[in-house]
Amino acid sequence: MPKIRMTIAYDGTDFHGFARQRGLRTVQGTLEDALARALGHPVEVEGSGRTDAGVHARAQVVHWEQDHGPAPERYPYVLGRMLPGDLIPIHAELAPDDFHARFSAKRKTYRYTIQRARVPDVFTHRYAWHEPSALDLARMRDAAQQLVGEHDFTSFCAAATPVEDKRRVIYDLRLEERGTYLDIYCTGNGFLQYMVRIIVGTLVDIGLGRLNRPVTEILAARDRRCAGRTAPAKGLTLWDVAYETSP
Amino acid sequence: MPKIRMTIAYDGTDFHGFARQRGLRTVQGTLEDALARALGHPVEVEGSGRTDAGVHARAQVVHWEQDHGPAPERYPYVLGRMLPGDLIPIHAELAPDDFHARFSAKRKTYRYTIQRARVPDVFTHRYAWHEPSALDLARMRDAAQQLVGEHDFTSFCAAATPVEDKRRVIYDLRLEERGTYLDIYCTGNGFLQYMVRIIVGTLVDIGLGRLNRPVTEILAARDRRCAGRTAPAKGLTLWDVAYETSP
Repeated sequence: MPKIRMTIAYDGTDFHGFARQRGLRTVQGTLEDALARALGHPVEVEGSGRTDAGVHARAQVVHWEQDHGPAPERYPYVLGRMLPGDLIPIHAELAPDDFHARFSAKRKTYRYTIQRARVPDVFTHRYAWHEPSALDLARMRDAAQQLVGEHDFTSFCAAATPVEDKRRVIYDLRLEERGTYLDIYCTGNGFLQYMVRIIVGTLVDIGLGRLNRPVTEILAARDRRCAGRTAPAKGLTLWDVAYETSP
Repeated sequence: MPKIRMTIAYDGTDFHGFARQRGLRTVQGTLEDALARALGHPVEVEGSGRTDAGVHARAQVVHWEQDHGPAPERYPYVLGRMLPGDLIPIHAELAPDDFHARFSAKRKTYRYTIQRARVPDVFTHRYAWHEPSALDLARMRDAAQQLVGEHDFTSFCAAATPVEDKRRVIYDLRLEERGTYLDIYCTGNGFLQYMVRIIVGTLVDIGLGRLNRPVTEILAARDRRCAGRTAPAKGLTLWDVAYETSP
């Protein structure tokens, strides 16, 4: 059956995460409901991965199969009229038969945004973590550099993470200033539960001078308690998912 | 009694407007409730003016009287811990005895934001009106220029507006491009109900080529039906309130 690949954006604030849950407003559930109405039968959607409650997406990728339906490129228009304002279909196209939103993904980039001003900006309060205290960016950048590469990230994921193999590769982890905002971009081959948020919380604790243990030691400890805080969900955005076929 | 003047910002999306209404979440109600908890007795707050449901504020000004309470400059901190994330106290100070948030206001500036991209940006869907069709900015700027000055704005306010004298002065009405956004700044000595939103809706209808009547004729008609649409509330932000004592 033909496969449709679609890029969607969402404001995660009012969703209970990506994955469908009975009786709760989720991204997958909202999208599947709209597709079912558009096509007249139930549709199962696969995403590149789940995002937690409160986490946003600039470019989440999903796919589904269909034997009939609108021309793929018409989906943003067709679904855009049915979906709420906080879930926006951006682009859709026919995908190769072997494409899979999750298994074909090669790299993911997340962006975490911190607002460093004295007073929180009401227009970004849903999308940024407000931290008015001074951050030592040089120390944070130094620590970030030590996280790049292949490591066992047991110290940087939820203690209860059931996955056996906690080795992951971080290709890039960089801090960019944008006015009073600090954006932390993290690109990797896969992420464990809360991994980006714990990395960010740890970098912030280091930047505040609250945490002085070297990152190499935190990694070696393989113990969640050695890392810093879990940064709040609201600052996190799934920024980009790269596939082998991506341009 | 000493008077406190405070500047607040809010995301109007989840408020039923500024003015207190029994049983509804409003800006005034939320603020008065927090002040009552902070001071231990009911407090009445005056704003520079009401904003409608869904309308935001970057810098709304309020005042209240108190015979005891925190040092004025401590209010953003004290109330910031009690208020929700979509209502932010920015600055507070002791005001002169004759200061009144509404009656002392000399000029107000509103900003209306239109997003002109093909696809709406999910991170501004609460704060901008999405209009993907081409807008003739030159025609819109020309029309805007004709609204500047003192006019009877009967055609540009809600038909049911009870105010007798509908003459107002617009000091400045300008369109500024910001990436894929168009910001329309409107400064005046006072605004009638829906006035800015009808001005914006009319400018957009002119920019789309849907409305060809000259603005001078629309003004002269003194008939709401001659102007364009009422732009949606979500794109509108109370940007600034100027007082004689303002720097």
